[in-house]
Order: sequence, then structure tokens, then C-alpha cells
Amino acid sequence: MDQRFSSQLFERAVDEFSKLPGIGRKTALRLVLHQLRLDVQNVDSLCSALSDLRHNVRYCRVCHNISDSEVCDICANPERDASQICVVENIQDVMAIEATTQFHGLYHVLGGVISPLDGIGPSDLEIQSLVDRVAEGHVGEVILALSSTMEGDTTNFYIYRKLSGFSNLKLTVLARGLSVNDELQYTDEVTLGRSIANRVLFDAGPR
Amino acid sequence: MDQRFSSQLFERAVDEFSKLPGIGRKTALRLVLHQLRLDVQNVDSLCSALSDLRHNVRYCRVCHNISDSEVCDICANPERDASQICVVENIQDVMAIEATTQFHGLYHVLGGVISPLDGIGPSDLEIQSLVDRVAEGHVGEVILALSSTMEGDTTNFYIYRKLSGFSNLKLTVLARGLSVNDELQYTDEVTLGRSIANRVLFDAGPR
Repeated sequence: MDQRFSSQLFERAVDEFSKLPGIGRKTALRLVLHQLRLDVQNVDSLCSALSDLRHNVRYCRVCHNISDSEVCDICANPERDASQICVVENIQDVMAIEATTQFHGLYHVLGGVISPLDGIGPSDLEIQSLVDRVAEGHVGEVILALSSTMEGDTTNFYIYRKLSGFSNLKLTVLARGLSVNDELQYTDEVTLGRSIANRVLFDAGPR
Repeated sequence: MDQRFSSQLFERAVDEFSKLPGIGRKTALRLVLHQLRLDVQNVDSLCSALSDLRHNVRYCRVCHNISDSEVCDICANPERDASQICVVENIQDVMAIEATTQFHGLYHVLGGVISPLDGIGPSDLEIQSLVDRVAEGHVGEVILALSSTMEGDTTNFYIYRKLSGFSNLKLTVLARGLSVNDELQYTDEVTLGRSIANRVLFDAGPR
């Protein structure tokens, strides 16, 4: 249905809203009508939050998680255990693990997993910066918390090879309480928390 | 789940999005992550569309529909039949009727219906301005296109009384193809179009 409105401003706002993922034309219309009924301050507040986010959000220099400053709150927190690094695919996974409250170390956000079909190789990910962090010598354990997919397993193995030169480094993976092909960010908190608590030594299998 | 993020900017954006109607915390998170991946221009474009809408949208001086100028595109269009006025509850109803392409006259947006329980009386609605438009003498027909609810019927009757003094004025209601308690804006286009085509003379019933 190509609906025409009596206001271009209105039409533009509906168009912009319907570009959002999962928001159709009818929902966009409902959202825009809601904005019209709100106080000007509330609308300004949404706009400035969105604009500030996109213009001012940064990525932590250490772990590559989103941050408001050069180093994120987690990396800057002296109460976190700096000897443990949990390697995750993306920032949603950091949020998912934080929500379990089972992990008190630091993170390392790879920015994806190795996926030759999508043209994503090791150099597109933050793997070298992980090796550099470990090379500084304060890290006792690296926990590989990637999704249990083919790509996740490939990435686990690649990182295992890269880090195998460091003696006294414990390399663990999440307990396979996760069923195969589960996306980490959609796993329930109890299962995810348990798989962090029950993490086991990484086994690269027979070669 | 009271999730904490490593970025205040991020948290604020999620909070603002989850204030929107029908948008929960998980959906807000997904929308904000999507904004982070977009180009800065796209985010700015959404923000400016929203801000322009709220700050600059106006209501037509004549029919009270939303408009970019003092008089809306429909009222200003010389090809529309100015002798017909279709009375509706709100701007969504204008959009719904426009989408049927069955009506070529003008509109009058009441801004609601008479509802004593909600404290909405005739003076809260644009009824006097409708009477003034009819009093100018160019109007041959007023079509009452309110929802077929108790409140809609009450409002129909009130307007009928207000306009009964004008001789040569035809007062019609939408054909009751609409089932009782249907909300006008959610009616399918075919049914709604047919009920405009089959409109009948208003009958106030026995008094």
C-alpha cells in the first residue's frame, strides 16, 4: 500500500522509521503518531540520545567493546580479574555474559569469527591485538566464548595455534552445555552462566 | 533483566528506544545496535526527520489535518470537491479513507469523539469550527465517518442537532457495512471504500 500523507514531514518520518529492522510501514506509522503526541522535550531527548550515540560512542582501545572513553568501564575497573580474558564475537555477547554475573575477568571482542565464505579472514578480526595482550605477560587464562558453530570452532582453533607458544597460559572453552549451532547471544542466562562455570581446557583434537 | 552496558551513551539510547510503544528492551537493543552499524548520515537523517516533524508539523487551519503549511494539501487542492465534507475522528482516519481513493471531497478532523467517561465534551472537539465551515454556505453534504461505537453514535447525533438548522444540507453516515465496535482505522480498504460509496441519509431515530 503506497499511502500518501498530507504532510511531507510526516511522510519523511514514517519513511525513516520503516527503514529500521523489523519495523514495517504500519508500525512506523504508529511510532510517528506517538511522537506527534509526545512533548517536544521527549522527542528531542530521543533524537539527541541517538545522535550522541552514533557520533560519540567509541571502542575500547584494549578490549574493543563499546565505550564512552578510550578504555571501557570493564577494563578500567580495578576489581575485575585482569588475569582472565574472555574472547567473544561481538558486543552483544559481552552483554549476555555480563548479565549472567558469573564472570569477573576482562573481555576481548573479536568483531566476528573467521568465515571464508563471507570473506572474513583472521586479519579482519582483533586476533593480533589479543596475542599482543597475552604477550604482555599478565594473563593466566584465555576463555574462548565463541558460538559453537563451524566458524566459531575454526576461530577457536586458529586462536589456539596463535597462543600455543605461551607457556603457563591456560586456554579454556565454554562447557558444551550449548547445543550445536546455538547463537551465543540468544542463549538463556542459566545455561550460559553454567557453561562459564564449567569451562574446560581447550582440546584441539587429533591432528 | 536490568542489563548494564559498558557505555552510558549506549544505555541512554536503549532507554529512549524502549520508551516507544510496542518496543521492549530486547527490540530496543537490536534497534540501537543497528544504528551503530549505519553510516552517520543515515542516523542523522532519522534524527532530523523526527525532530523536524515534531518541531515543524502544523495542523490545517481549515480541516485540522496534519499539514506542512497553514492549509493542508487536501484543502488547497482545487480538484477536490469542496461541497463535501467528511467528518472523521483523527488523522489516521483521513489516511485510511484516502487509501480507499473513493472520496474526493474535503475532511474535517474532530480530534476525538464525545466521551463523558473520558471527560471529552463537545467543546473539546472541533465541532464549532465544522458548524462555521457549513455556515459559509458552500457545503452541500456532510458525511459523518466516525467509528460505529457508542461514542461515535453520540457524536453523530450531536453534530446532527448542531447542523439541523441548515436547509439544503445533506447529512449522511457511512453505510453500516462496518460491524459494531469496529475501529475505523483498522477496517480493510474494500469494506471502507464500499461504505463510503453506499453512504445513506442520516436518521436520528425516534425521539
